[in-house]
Formats: sequence, structure tokens, C-alpha cells
Amino acid sequence: MSEWILAVDGGGTSCRAAVATASGQIVGRGLSGAANILSDPATARRHILAATENACREAGIDPAMVSSMPALLGLAGSNVGDVAAQIAAALPFARTDIVSDGLIALQGALGDADGTMAILGTGTVYFTRDGGRVRTLGGWGFQVGDQGSGAWLGHALLQQCLLAFDGVRPGSALSAAVLAEFSGDPGAIVSFARAAQPSDYGRFAPRVFEALAEGDAVAADLVKAAATAIDAALDAAAGKGSAPICLLGGLSSLYAPHLAARHRARLVAPLADALTGAVALCAARLTAAGQREA
Amino acid sequence: MSEWILAVDGGGTSCRAAVATASGQIVGRGLSGAANILSDPATARRHILAATENACREAGIDPAMVSSMPALLGLAGSNVGDVAAQIAAALPFARTDIVSDGLIALQGALGDADGTMAILGTGTVYFTRDGGRVRTLGGWGFQVGDQGSGAWLGHALLQQCLLAFDGVRPGSALSAAVLAEFSGDPGAIVSFARAAQPSDYGRFAPRVFEALAEGDAVAADLVKAAATAIDAALDAAAGKGSAPICLLGGLSSLYAPHLAARHRARLVAPLADALTGAVALCAARLTAAGQREA
Repeated sequence: MSEWILAVDGGGTSCRAAVATASGQIVGRGLSGAANILSDPATARRHILAATENACREAGIDPAMVSSMPALLGLAGSNVGDVAAQIAAALPFARTDIVSDGLIALQGALGDADGTMAILGTGTVYFTRDGGRVRTLGGWGFQVGDQGSGAWLGHALLQQCLLAFDGVRPGSALSAAVLAEFSGDPGAIVSFARAAQPSDYGRFAPRVFEALAEGDAVAADLVKAAATAIDAALDAAAGKGSAPICLLGGLSSLYAPHLAARHRARLVAPLADALTGAVALCAARLTAAGQREA
Repeated sequence: MSEWILAVDGGGTSCRAAVATASGQIVGRGLSGAANILSDPATARRHILAATENACREAGIDPAMVSSMPALLGLAGSNVGDVAAQIAAALPFARTDIVSDGLIALQGALGDADGTMAILGTGTVYFTRDGGRVRTLGGWGFQVGDQGSGAWLGHALLQQCLLAFDGVRPGSALSAAVLAEFSGDPGAIVSFARAAQPSDYGRFAPRVFEALAEGDAVAADLVKAAATAIDAALDAAAGKGSAPICLLGGLSSLYAPHLAARHRARLVAPLADALTGAVALCAARLTAAGQREA
């Protein structure tokens, strides 16, 4: 085994890697493109390798050395079918552990402590470590889940625009502005929605918070409904104890002031990022394996 | 011009036609397959012709005679782009008027009277005739509208199954039974939802009403939310007057007892079906055209 270890944080927009000492001190970092193992495993493998080789170069280590290093990868989509096993088999590392992107984010955010991490971005998902055991809540995706997510909020806004157009619900400056962006044509909203991906809806989410700050009534109703859904998920995920709750994701700071007081009182800032969490998990597993061998 | 007129009610599952006297007395009816002018205009044209020819045969009229008959067609999707004009140009009738499927249903349901027709099926749409003028409300489709529709209800049920699985919301016998149909695997619900069309969701809607009759709490919440959405749409569509409200569509009799008393008091049964409405519209337009020529 090498004196070095590798950690990877791979997702749909980029792949980040770190090379670290066996005890977890990062000595080099590398970046590359998307590592979407579900939609494009071949490109994902290439970008994982590029990121790890870039990390070696920054550390002044021969990139060919990765074949002697143990690696831990936190990858989005790794819980689906056998894609993780296929990617692991196609990588040259001395040993390849693949875990979910959520697990490395949880490790980064909370370290070894118990607590709950909520990722509030285009989607929503909750991870809780309780007595060392990790459980997941939500993360089912936009079609039948992700209540309160950016996609959910943008989608709900477009629904309100149509209901306001029909006179079924009161409109507001926000709903009027959005309808105007669709040339005042509700059919254009319908056409947009037929082709929209969750990220397309999610782009409207920051607008809702901006309008809320200006006192917009439609925005206030939407954020209230979304925050209520997130509070309900946090009640189930984090329970009634006092373990910390850490909010991550692009909407985390926007939602924080709107959550229930029982949750706001438990909010903590993340200790570190997901890549740091992956390094820590890799080092810990290496230590555990060494202890089993000893 | 022929002494006969043609009327067609064409939709996504079948196409029905009638041949009638110039004053609107039906003398023959014909049926054929789907006439979806948006997704498959060539098949739609073939089925429109087949239905009208079948109607002629039933009336003992030479099917070649359709080329001398004026026709009025109520077709789903006819308000999108120029598909209606294209279909009209490809049909052999002496004159071809194409209107929406909603307009012929409204004419059938209410005759020449003012009032509102709500179609409560896989989708929802509202038509109101007020002082002779017809306006539409809703009908935007499942992606960003159709609140309270069968698709909406089935979709909301699957969301509740996942929230119950996660412990975010209380479950019930209904949510447990549906999850069991997906082998107890929430991921199977997510997979289903990724591929589901509105009609796939809509198939769960009757189950919600069955469970409601057995006192199921999840079903009660869902029907209450759906009926509230339909009541809000009816408030906007039908206003505060006393003009009749006619409910059509597969879920109409299921929803009727759950609507607000202010709407239940105005409910009337439809006078006739959409095909009869198309015949009446065709006869009326012929009369109007004759009067203009005279």
C-alpha cells in the first residue's frame, strides 16, 4: 500500500479529488468535469481519473502512483443498481470504496458527531447519523418527492401564475412578472413545463425569495408551504433531540430564517466540505482495515 | 349542399360521428378508433372518415355522399397551432368546421342555456357560457395545472406513500396497500413516476374514493384538498350567480358529494352528450349561414 490515499467527490456538474496522507492530511487537490455515473459512466470514469491525476500533480506525486493508492469515492447515483460496482471495477486504484455523495457530505458537515444534514438545493434529501448509524430520508426526486426543493418551489410558482391568470387565486407582482416573461401567454408556460427538467424549474426559486423580501404575497405563501414541508421532514429526520442540524445546498441560507424555531435553534455551520469528508472516511476505513489485519 | 349534415366527436380514445338532417335529427351513428390530431394526425383523419362513413351506412346513405355534406368536428387539441386547419384541409366534406371538444360537450350538456360545465377526468377544464359568450378556465394539463384531476389525485397519493414511508406524514391502509403493490419499495414508486403519463396516475384516483368510503384518513385529506381546488376553480368559472353547473368526466359523480354546498345547489345533469352537441352546433351554423346568404 501507498503512503497516500485518494478521495473523490463526484457529481453531475464536476468531479473533485484529493490526495492525502494515510492519516487524512490533504496534500493536493484536483478538479475535472462531470462524473454522472448513471447517465454517462465512461465520461464519469475519465473525469474521476483526471481529477485524481490533477490532485497528484498538485502534490508533486507521479500520477501513475494512483494504482497503488486506496480510494474512497462519494458519487451521486451510486445507490442505483450495480453502477457503483461497474465503475469500481473500471478504476485502477489499489482499492476502491464507493459510497453515496450524501455520506461524504455528512462526514464533512458533522465530522464524527451525531446529527442531521439537510441538502436544500434543486432537490431535497436528509441524512441523519444517530449512534453512529446513518439513515436517509427523502431524496426521491422531483416527480413524487423533494417537497420544498428549488424545483418544487419554481414549479409551484408556475402553477400559481396559471391560477392567477384564470382568476382562481390572487396574483401578485411576482406572478405577473413571470407571466410577462412568457409573453403573457399561459400556453407558453405549459410548453415550458412539458420540457422542463427539475433544474429548469429550480432557476425560478431564488426569484421567489427575492419577491418575498419585497413583501410579495404569492411568494410568501409559496415559501411558507415549502418551509412547512421542510420542517415536517426535519421533524422526522432529526427528531426531538438536540443533535445539530446542518443545512447545505444552494437554498440553505435562504430557507434558514423561515424554518420553525425548534429547528433554527439546532442549526450549525458545516465543519468542512464533502471532499474533506471523503478524505476522513477513507483514512478511517484504512485504519479500521489495518486494525483488522493487525 | 346535401340534405344531411355530419357531426364528429373525436378524442384520444375513440372517434364518434353522426349523420343528421339539416335541422339536427340524428339518423345514423358511427364509431372508430382514436382521433388524436396532435400526436397522430394521419390516423386521426382516417378514423374521422371511418366514423362518418359508418354513420352513413347505419343511416342507409352512400358513404361517398360525405363529400357533399357540411361537417362540424369537436376535436381535442384543436386549439394548438394550426393542426385544425391542416386536418380540415385533408378532409373531403363539403365544408369543415373544427371546434374544441369542450365546446361540443358544453353544447350537449347545457343546450343553448348559460351555465358552466366542469370536466373532471384524468385532467380538469371548465367551460362557461355567459350571455352567449363561451370562456374556458384551466385545462392546462398535468404538468402545471389540472388541480383536483384524476392524475393530480393519483400523483398526490403516491407522494403521500413516500412521505408515509419516511415517517414525515401519517400513513393509512390506503398508502400501505399502494406501497405493497410496489413490493414495499419506494424506489419502485419513483421509477414508476419517472415514466408515468397522466393516465397512469389517474388509474389510482378511483381507489382514493373507495378508501374514503372506508374512512381512510389519507384518502380523506387528498379528496378534501382536491375538492377545495375544484371549488376554487368553480368560484372563478361559474361566479356567484345561479346559472347551472354540469359535471362531466369519469370522476364527476365521485366528486359531486364533496363539493361546497354553494356549488352542489347548482348541479344539473347534462341534457345530452357531446356528439349531440356537435350536431346541434352544425345545424345552427348551417341555419346562420343560410340566413346570411338569404
